[in-house]
Amino acid sequence: MRATVMYGAGDVRIEDVPDARLVEPTDALLVVTRACICGSDLWPYKQMKPTEEGRRMGHEFIGRVEAVGADVRTVKPGDLVVAPFAWSDGTCVFCREGLQTSCLHGGWWGGTDQDGGQGEAVRVPQADGTLVVLPVGEDDALMPSLLSLSDVMATGHHAAVSARVGPGKSVAVVGDGAVGLCGVIAAKRLGAERILILGRHPDRIALARDFGATDVVSERGDEAVERVRELTGGLGVHSVLECVGYEQSMLTALGIVRPGGAVGRVGVPQHETLPAAGPTFFDNITISGGPAPARAYIEELLPDVLEGRIEPGRVFDRTVGLDGVPDGYRAMDEREAIKVMVEP
Amino acid sequence: MRATVMYGAGDVRIEDVPDARLVEPTDALLVVTRACICGSDLWPYKQMKPTEEGRRMGHEFIGRVEAVGADVRTVKPGDLVVAPFAWSDGTCVFCREGLQTSCLHGGWWGGTDQDGGQGEAVRVPQADGTLVVLPVGEDDALMPSLLSLSDVMATGHHAAVSARVGPGKSVAVVGDGAVGLCGVIAAKRLGAERILILGRHPDRIALARDFGATDVVSERGDEAVERVRELTGGLGVHSVLECVGYEQSMLTALGIVRPGGAVGRVGVPQHETLPAAGPTFFDNITISGGPAPARAYIEELLPDVLEGRIEPGRVFDRTVGLDGVPDGYRAMDEREAIKVMVEP
Repeated sequence: MRATVMYGAGDVRIEDVPDARLVEPTDALLVVTRACICGSDLWPYKQMKPTEEGRRMGHEFIGRVEAVGADVRTVKPGDLVVAPFAWSDGTCVFCREGLQTSCLHGGWWGGTDQDGGQGEAVRVPQADGTLVVLPVGEDDALMPSLLSLSDVMATGHHAAVSARVGPGKSVAVVGDGAVGLCGVIAAKRLGAERILILGRHPDRIALARDFGATDVVSERGDEAVERVRELTGGLGVHSVLECVGYEQSMLTALGIVRPGGAVGRVGVPQHETLPAAGPTFFDNITISGGPAPARAYIEELLPDVLEGRIEPGRVFDRTVGLDGVPDGYRAMDEREAIKVMVEP
Repeated sequence: MRATVMYGAGDVRIEDVPDARLVEPTDALLVVTRACICGSDLWPYKQMKPTEEGRRMGHEFIGRVEAVGADVRTVKPGDLVVAPFAWSDGTCVFCREGLQTSCLHGGWWGGTDQDGGQGEAVRVPQADGTLVVLPVGEDDALMPSLLSLSDVMATGHHAAVSARVGPGKSVAVVGDGAVGLCGVIAAKRLGAERILILGRHPDRIALARDFGATDVVSERGDEAVERVRELTGGLGVHSVLECVGYEQSMLTALGIVRPGGAVGRVGVPQHETLPAAGPTFFDNITISGGPAPARAYIEELLPDVLEGRIEPGRVFDRTVGLDGVPDGYRAMDEREAIKVMVEP
């Protein structure tokens, strides 16, 4: 079968790889119908050292079940299913608590020993715990929004939950990428009264406004902090969604959160430290977040997608076939595209 | 009047200072009946550079109202009152949210321009917002526990609240000082199922057990982390109360919290940074806490003290007069005393 393999920074290839197949009795075999490129795929795209063996890519996908192992109970051949960006058994203590990214028997797609979503097919471990059946056809118009549940919408939602967004709250979203935009959707959905988006790209800002952003802060760094303070009577916002992962974006987040407020961070940190003292401590700031338990959120958000109350699929602004994946990476890296969908 | 003045590390003196007096119409004048020495007073006792003018000390006290300004409505001369470790107006946006340590018109006792609690009398700014009237006589047997509400019990409670302690949770308390011991009380009060205390001083451990600690971890550093993991099936605890403030104690806290868990930190940080990446992010750890809004917690905890359901006053194991304060600092610094009460 054909799949995406990254060999180093900027070096993404579509290659023939061994066919995906059932290995464990708890596996399912999926034919991928939709996948996409993630902002977090850009970290290795920028930084990965060259390797001989390469790394399989892609952790967001929808697929048609082709076959299941003997122990699989909840999905059957022919089902259309969405996979969260980590697999999980659904039964361990963390899965039962709704933190499937810490599943004791879970793991991550791609790399050197698992299939990735950016390919023709995927072996899905722990199929019962991992997959969610979709009650629609594989070419349904909702497909982009359903695909977003595998990561980007779930991650924006996790940022909002971690930042304790709720009715009446003031919220700032740091980052106007696909996750930040989904963060705006999530903040609106959770009842935020005011939603500030920090960004400057006109197309992204327009989408953020459509999703519910009430204010746009196009400044950066200290000027952004000053501007948010101006907009909030000097106080800062209750909740900040940190959707980037750079040290500067985290410091901006900590600079605009008000005393007693919370920063929900979902951008994979590219920095080593957070400030321990100063306002972070004396203003009683909460820092929370991490990888989103997308498996839990798929069930929570699916009705809103199916009934059209949220449209996170609008973050996709380009669609490519498998051969177009390398150029999709380039386009996202150069911020020419917000998020690229793949139809293998 | 006489009061405690610190001139540098290890240099605590009892001196004649200008009499406390009403300045603003919102002030009250208190004669201090009970005060105490705080673990946080030991930071300058260890580190303060020598100064000419000195710093007035003490931020925990109970007193008799001697006089009030024209605008004061909620306390009157003769009332016995407890003061939280920061004053606050009770009306600003943060006071209304219960975060009085961030009061827009609040401040901190002592230093170079305010009276401290370790003296004969105190001018209390924002008396209506700050003081809570106690329905007991000034020599009531409950006085130590009531005094603990001004800081140490409120702070232990804040650590527990920030660490999201609740029914059925497993909790670890890092630090066996007075705050840590009050953290055990708070964790028990909030319904924790299991409470591990990290400490090794027999008298403190005995008190922790009386307060509800179920397990004692006397190891330190990596060995403490390993021991807590052993005691919790490898998972770690839901909630960690960081009641010290050193980098090592914070790293221990982060090492023993389970995925999805929270660290509530109340020890004034003596370190600059927290880890941003690694398990702190990938395990979805929440870091929260700061100075306790003691003013809010006094009202919440007072009934439990008055009705004898909690006995935080047991953390006091020595009482001195004003002249005994310098030796009280020494005794606490050398861990000869857990917490020293002052009867001026």
